[in-house]
Amino acid sequence: MEKIRTIHYGVGYVGAEIARLAASRPNIEIVACIDTDLVKAGRDLAEIIGAAQPTGMVISSDAGAVLSSTEADVVVHCTRSYLPQVVQQLSQIIEAGFDVVSTCEELSYPQLQYPDLADKLDTLARAHGVTVLGTGINPGFAMDKLPLALTGVCQEVRSMRVTRVVDASRRRLPLQRRVGPGLSVEAFQERVKDGTVCHVGLLESAALIARGLGWELDDLSETTEPVVADRVVSSEHFTVQPGQVRGVQQVVRGLKRGRVVLVLELRMALGEEDPHDAVVIEGTPPIDMVIQGGIHGDQATAAVIVNSISLVAAAGPGLVTVNDLPIARSLGVA
Amino acid sequence: MEKIRTIHYGVGYVGAEIARLAASRPNIEIVACIDTDLVKAGRDLAEIIGAAQPTGMVISSDAGAVLSSTEADVVVHCTRSYLPQVVQQLSQIIEAGFDVVSTCEELSYPQLQYPDLADKLDTLARAHGVTVLGTGINPGFAMDKLPLALTGVCQEVRSMRVTRVVDASRRRLPLQRRVGPGLSVEAFQERVKDGTVCHVGLLESAALIARGLGWELDDLSETTEPVVADRVVSSEHFTVQPGQVRGVQQVVRGLKRGRVVLVLELRMALGEEDPHDAVVIEGTPPIDMVIQGGIHGDQATAAVIVNSISLVAAAGPGLVTVNDLPIARSLGVA
Repeated sequence: MEKIRTIHYGVGYVGAEIARLAASRPNIEIVACIDTDLVKAGRDLAEIIGAAQPTGMVISSDAGAVLSSTEADVVVHCTRSYLPQVVQQLSQIIEAGFDVVSTCEELSYPQLQYPDLADKLDTLARAHGVTVLGTGINPGFAMDKLPLALTGVCQEVRSMRVTRVVDASRRRLPLQRRVGPGLSVEAFQERVKDGTVCHVGLLESAALIARGLGWELDDLSETTEPVVADRVVSSEHFTVQPGQVRGVQQVVRGLKRGRVVLVLELRMALGEEDPHDAVVIEGTPPIDMVIQGGIHGDQATAAVIVNSISLVAAAGPGLVTVNDLPIARSLGVA
Repeated sequence: MEKIRTIHYGVGYVGAEIARLAASRPNIEIVACIDTDLVKAGRDLAEIIGAAQPTGMVISSDAGAVLSSTEADVVVHCTRSYLPQVVQQLSQIIEAGFDVVSTCEELSYPQLQYPDLADKLDTLARAHGVTVLGTGINPGFAMDKLPLALTGVCQEVRSMRVTRVVDASRRRLPLQRRVGPGLSVEAFQERVKDGTVCHVGLLESAALIARGLGWELDDLSETTEPVVADRVVSSEHFTVQPGQVRGVQQVVRGLKRGRVVLVLELRMALGEEDPHDAVVIEGTPPIDMVIQGGIHGDQATAAVIVNSISLVAAAGPGLVTVNDLPIARSLGVA
């Protein structure tokens, strides 16, 4: 088996989990690591991924130097959520001739909010013969690819509702922070405005579904509301008093000929007692699916990214979405 | 939009449902119909699919004449369950230069039981530049592609259990017959031996999962048992007395290094009170999925086949499985 050589660009919490998993896979060989955080630069990868022995691989903060001097196949990119923040990094990777799989949420369907940037990235990727994919658990699976896969058994889909309820208490600290625990409702609203409280990518998930179904929506809109505690709720990191915010609820609605045909509802809060993922399709046949307990986001994000590496390596050039690729599957060892 | 031109080879109960759905899709144009049943030959397709107006398309029993004289893209093949019964039909279609999507259950993964036939079909398909796919709801989705898609979020899969419970009372007459309602246990055992009572394709589903996960199984075995009524159970077509058979339960077990890592359990019986599809993955993260009510097989089979037509038309040449293709999705109109 020829190994796929990866460069890991961004080894923060999620990036390190991805690198740790990639290092364990027999079909993947990590050949370089990049992180612009100077605290990480110069350290051995082993320290970041919690390996017992040094790997001999030193994290570099000089992306240009690494990308221009390394023989590799795929860059695993894990830095920021918003496309404008990463477009420079992505361009540099593409110009160096590497396929990219990225956790950037807005890259999951950049055509929605940044059609010009998407065009540019697609043109650049084709010119350099590389594939560019944004994916993860959400966006990338739970609220787009999975519901869309379920429609494969439908003769007709009249409407769809996708729900994801996450108990943030069980998630990593940065995610807990992003749901705004302990904030007043007013402070929460401010944080929504500046983009520091909320999940990025729900609109992209809805657009991926609509695109996948060939639906032309009249309107696609999002609301973001606080989930307010009615009792004391606490996690390892936060304690929330009654009346304070314990989480966030985002809802995207898609309209077609004046009728709501698509609803995506994401609730991430401390103390959620019934976390789950659900897809309800009103169609022929109807589908009523639930994943009890929900899909654990931190573990799953790393899995989806690493499981997608071989698909991206095999795909034709251009900017692609999860809709375009075969299903990723775990190649973890039983 | 350029239409995909289809020839429908086999318009029995399921084939007619497929043709009816294909006729309703704006991206598909039915250009010919074949059925070797002389009762159907010579009749207008409208009679078979229940259309109000004649279509002008007459069903032919002469496959050779239709295949050699028709301009088309994809043949939708829906005749028999066992590969040896259809290999001649498939070869004729391939040699005529058409892509094939077929409901033949054993074609979903012919490498398992007929590696030589699979090789021959693959070689022939490549020589003629066409794609050959066997799919449907089961095998093809509920007990293979869907569970495999769910592993895409797993870092590691240690074992998997897939369960499908079907209330046969709600299914078409031929399927009700296949579960053996009203038989004595002895008569049931005879019918299992001659292959007229049982679902075909459960071993293929298990092999598709194992292959998709890169698992080398030591053993893959199947048991078929009667489900015996403990009360009177009836459907539109059958009444079953206590002590008689009301259905069939098939279980496939896959072993890896002596440990059961894969269990597929299919129960199809009259009077099942909690029909459902379930996938339980012991892995990181674990997954516990259920589709309440189950996926309705008759409607879904037609949907999966028709939704796969454009994928087969776009795929490269050779004998492929559902693992190789992007997800099918409904292009039904909302």
